[in-house]
Amino acid sequence: MNAASSELARQAEQLSADVVRPIPGSRKIHVGGPRADVRVAMREIVLERTPTLFGGEDNPPLAVYDTSGPYTDPDASIDLTRGLPRLRERWIAARGDTHELPALTSTFGRKREADPKLDAIRFGNRARPRRALPGANVTQMHYARRGIITAEMEYIAIRENQRLEALTDAGLRAQHPGQSFGASIPARITAEFVRDEVARGRAIIPCNINHPESEPMIIGRNFLTKVNANIGNSAVSSGIAEEVEKLVWAIRWGADNVMDLSTGKHIHETREWIIRNSPVPIGTVPIYQALEKVGGRAEELTWELFRDTLIEQAEQGVDYFTIHAGVRLAHVPLTAKRVTGIVSRGGSIMAKWCLAHHRESFLYEHFEDICEIMKAYDVAFSLGDGLRPGSIADANDAAQFAELETLGELTQIAWKHDVQTMIEGPGHVPMQLIKENMDRQLACCGEAPFYTLGPLTTDIAPGYDHITSAIGAALIGWYGTAMLCYVTPKEHLGLPDKHDVREGLMAYRIAAHAADLAKGHPGAQARDNALSKARFEFRWQDQFNLGLDPERAREYHDTTLPKDAHKAAHFCSMCGPQFCSMRITQDVRDYAAGREVATAAGIAAGMREKSAEFRAAGGQVYVPG
Amino acid sequence: MNAASSELARQAEQLSADVVRPIPGSRKIHVGGPRADVRVAMREIVLERTPTLFGGEDNPPLAVYDTSGPYTDPDASIDLTRGLPRLRERWIAARGDTHELPALTSTFGRKREADPKLDAIRFGNRARPRRALPGANVTQMHYARRGIITAEMEYIAIRENQRLEALTDAGLRAQHPGQSFGASIPARITAEFVRDEVARGRAIIPCNINHPESEPMIIGRNFLTKVNANIGNSAVSSGIAEEVEKLVWAIRWGADNVMDLSTGKHIHETREWIIRNSPVPIGTVPIYQALEKVGGRAEELTWELFRDTLIEQAEQGVDYFTIHAGVRLAHVPLTAKRVTGIVSRGGSIMAKWCLAHHRESFLYEHFEDICEIMKAYDVAFSLGDGLRPGSIADANDAAQFAELETLGELTQIAWKHDVQTMIEGPGHVPMQLIKENMDRQLACCGEAPFYTLGPLTTDIAPGYDHITSAIGAALIGWYGTAMLCYVTPKEHLGLPDKHDVREGLMAYRIAAHAADLAKGHPGAQARDNALSKARFEFRWQDQFNLGLDPERAREYHDTTLPKDAHKAAHFCSMCGPQFCSMRITQDVRDYAAGREVATAAGIAAGMREKSAEFRAAGGQVYVPG
Repeated sequence: MNAASSELARQAEQLSADVVRPIPGSRKIHVGGPRADVRVAMREIVLERTPTLFGGEDNPPLAVYDTSGPYTDPDASIDLTRGLPRLRERWIAARGDTHELPALTSTFGRKREADPKLDAIRFGNRARPRRALPGANVTQMHYARRGIITAEMEYIAIRENQRLEALTDAGLRAQHPGQSFGASIPARITAEFVRDEVARGRAIIPCNINHPESEPMIIGRNFLTKVNANIGNSAVSSGIAEEVEKLVWAIRWGADNVMDLSTGKHIHETREWIIRNSPVPIGTVPIYQALEKVGGRAEELTWELFRDTLIEQAEQGVDYFTIHAGVRLAHVPLTAKRVTGIVSRGGSIMAKWCLAHHRESFLYEHFEDICEIMKAYDVAFSLGDGLRPGSIADANDAAQFAELETLGELTQIAWKHDVQTMIEGPGHVPMQLIKENMDRQLACCGEAPFYTLGPLTTDIAPGYDHITSAIGAALIGWYGTAMLCYVTPKEHLGLPDKHDVREGLMAYRIAAHAADLAKGHPGAQARDNALSKARFEFRWQDQFNLGLDPERAREYHDTTLPKDAHKAAHFCSMCGPQFCSMRITQDVRDYAAGREVATAAGIAAGMREKSAEFRAAGGQVYVPG
Repeated sequence: MNAASSELARQAEQLSADVVRPIPGSRKIHVGGPRADVRVAMREIVLERTPTLFGGEDNPPLAVYDTSGPYTDPDASIDLTRGLPRLRERWIAARGDTHELPALTSTFGRKREADPKLDAIRFGNRARPRRALPGANVTQMHYARRGIITAEMEYIAIRENQRLEALTDAGLRAQHPGQSFGASIPARITAEFVRDEVARGRAIIPCNINHPESEPMIIGRNFLTKVNANIGNSAVSSGIAEEVEKLVWAIRWGADNVMDLSTGKHIHETREWIIRNSPVPIGTVPIYQALEKVGGRAEELTWELFRDTLIEQAEQGVDYFTIHAGVRLAHVPLTAKRVTGIVSRGGSIMAKWCLAHHRESFLYEHFEDICEIMKAYDVAFSLGDGLRPGSIADANDAAQFAELETLGELTQIAWKHDVQTMIEGPGHVPMQLIKENMDRQLACCGEAPFYTLGPLTTDIAPGYDHITSAIGAALIGWYGTAMLCYVTPKEHLGLPDKHDVREGLMAYRIAAHAADLAKGHPGAQARDNALSKARFEFRWQDQFNLGLDPERAREYHDTTLPKDAHKAAHFCSMCGPQFCSMRITQDVRDYAAGREVATAAGIAAGMREKSAEFRAAGGQVYVPG
């Protein structure tokens, strides 16, 4: 690496110690499938034996979906200045439809590369950019439509199943029927199913050929609900090292995707560091950077400048672009009477441009040109909702739904080019209006994956909008949204720090999982079942480790009962050692064991004879600890 | 007061400074109605003038429901050792159907009163207990059924309306139509409506005649959704002073009711301190204390001992009792195959008793005797869900719904005695199964108010169960639940401290408000509208103060932009000073002003002419700060 970047490298070293510690009670496993070169990283939670009191039995480890990449693997060697291993590099090369470019092709990228003042902050270990051969289309959708199952699709099929087939215990597999509102979730995800969903546009695999470090993942209503975390500096705060730390921190807590929304200086260099170190897809809003290039004057934006920005970012490896091409000239005045007008930054940039030029935006007019760029690198569209409501009052209004219809038209154009596409949605929406958003999106956009911010179900809780929005996110996820964009406690107030990123992600992992349970996603309940069994059996360590945040759970337990011995205690602080509901339940269970308890009459008969027996034995349910 | 209690008094003094500070930006108001002796405390949030940039106008203050009692009123003199003023004392006396007792009538209460060892912790300023005259029934339901509108009902009508009639601004009054699932919410709450709802059992007013300090409130599906907070020490933690502080802290953050779930020693004395200082109704689970009295041996519980406990607590002023009379002998074995068995403490106590004695519980067999006690003091039933599910796996099972049917039968018996009754429900329930709980409860229990714990929508997030359950609470509140029992981040892990109480309450105030918005409760959206208008106009202080937690909002804003000047800044840290969506919206608004923007064609025509004008003016939307 470049000697001049040593200061940044030193910072990056410091960061790694904090964010790469293994997740308690878990080990990294790699699960193989039909293809020898596809091995899927998962996290396996190792469980203790059930105490003899509760029947004594082994509890097999539980495999869970893992977004944290190599960072939580103690066997992995992490060096942020080198970037992650290029997992997909050979798959991409083997397809033979791309070539390495001799240099960056964007004007801006070349300029930054040639600027010696940037040496100190430039990522040093960059591979040469790759692009489709002339005339080739390298999107996963294009392969899927030609019947090709890619390595990425194989990876995803294994990943989505979370080793469900290893769950042989009927109790762990037990699950309530879901209510899926028309989703088509199979009992088992196959690579062919993945291919088919991508082919019909109902799911996307964001995987730019210039981001070979990414572990393939899929976004679609028939797969596990995903969560996106936004990071990014602004003019006011945050530097490169801090943003990389936020990335690694975010994926530790379950971010399936990360959007880099930086608006300050060094956007280009920050992005490079993030992508090279990211095992999850990275999304951006290219118009933000384009705006920086014209000094913040929206009306000076041009197609040429924007095009150069797309190519710049595509060659860095951005996996999906938010493009606000749905903000049409005629939509803008529909926002005039809103309480909070246009709250999307991208939307307001384009609205300002449209007002200044009195014409349709260059995003709309050049949409097919954008498709050409997307398919040369396999960048997916995230069609931006520039007119999303910023308050309860503005929910589901004419501006919002007019834009949604345009997004539906643009989806058809993108699909004509086999460009993968998802649709952005919500904002602030009260509960009773959420379903209409989902229903209209499915109808307008041909089931292209919906990707929503929240929605926030009330405006009145600044400081707690991760909660106002987790409520809406759980609902819209249940109704069919494929990916939930998280909201942190700092929403509306400031930029999230590490604490906020963790809080936001936990709220959204909860919302996503609640949605999977409600849809009836196969196997979704296994982790709940395993955790509740551990809870009932007073396996405290297992309860912590099966949770979404083992560290927080342990810390809270320690606050009341700090001693290690209490982690094996057959009571908890809520009731104390003298009385415990769960112990009494075991009593009921022991009593009922061995007899058929199907009818109330049978129960009564059985209980009469057992009653004396129970009392004769001292009515004792507490076994000495 | 007793000199011996000086140590506790000193502690109580120390506490008061922290929890009684006024809520920022608010002032206490007292709103009158037809009766001169009914003046309802509310909190009025005072707002700034709209900046000239956004049209310059006055923003009238907004009155909001206030649970915090006199504690947040700088004009009130607070002395925890004296207790709160007895707001309802004259109303109760004036009805002429009660009399003061010469002394406590419970054996236990008398014993405690006579014990000099308790002098140091005894509340010193107790009024003499009051009871119905022989043969009298003093419940609000009894009055309501005879057509009497009580002062409590007058108070509630004013309180529930939150001065909606003062909101003359059409923008603030704007509200989306709700989806109420069969609720019957009037446009304006009248005292007659309150009476009618109480008469038909669809709402309750928990207001023991021995708790005259309480500010009347109502629980019913056609009123604002309420939130209950649990406090209470256990064998492991917490003392009297700490519990009183938790009470005052809980109502500061919006607890409409507080349940004292203490299980340790000095339950009686702790409860007295809590009730005397509580402006909100206090609930208990009397079986907890009864169990203490028999040394934790459930099978030794007797009707006589339990009866004495009910009278002891009724004469202290407990407003509602959780009574687990629905746990019938035949239900117990239905829990044997559950993943987490019986998780309700009361439920497992009764289950153990039933197993040991092989008969129906004394709660069930003596239910009419209990009604006689309830109506002599106006204690309301909260019929306990002893068999609620403790895991997703156990949701909506035979045990749970068998108990619910029994609770429906008991409701009819309670109503025969004109005893106010609500029904406890949920626990852990995935989203798709929540509605069935509500629908069955409405059907089984004749629309008696439903009062639910959560439900938690997944088991896998220990440390974040305020969020897993706020999702479920918002949903079930929308479907018709009248009061939500909060869950704190410490659920399943330990006892909540002050921080946890605040977090839990915020999550639940959000859920309750989201439910009110979704049901279409009249005026519910006014606060959202006011806050969003403040947000749009960069009135930062107003945005903080209109929020549920002004202190947290301000603190978060300060983290990124600490300077006072930034509170008047027309930008925020998310985008920085150079670019701001909201400013661009103002531009759109200015542009559209004065012209009709009803049709897309009209818009396009208007925009053509305005475009040149806009550019000629420099396209400038940022007015120098």
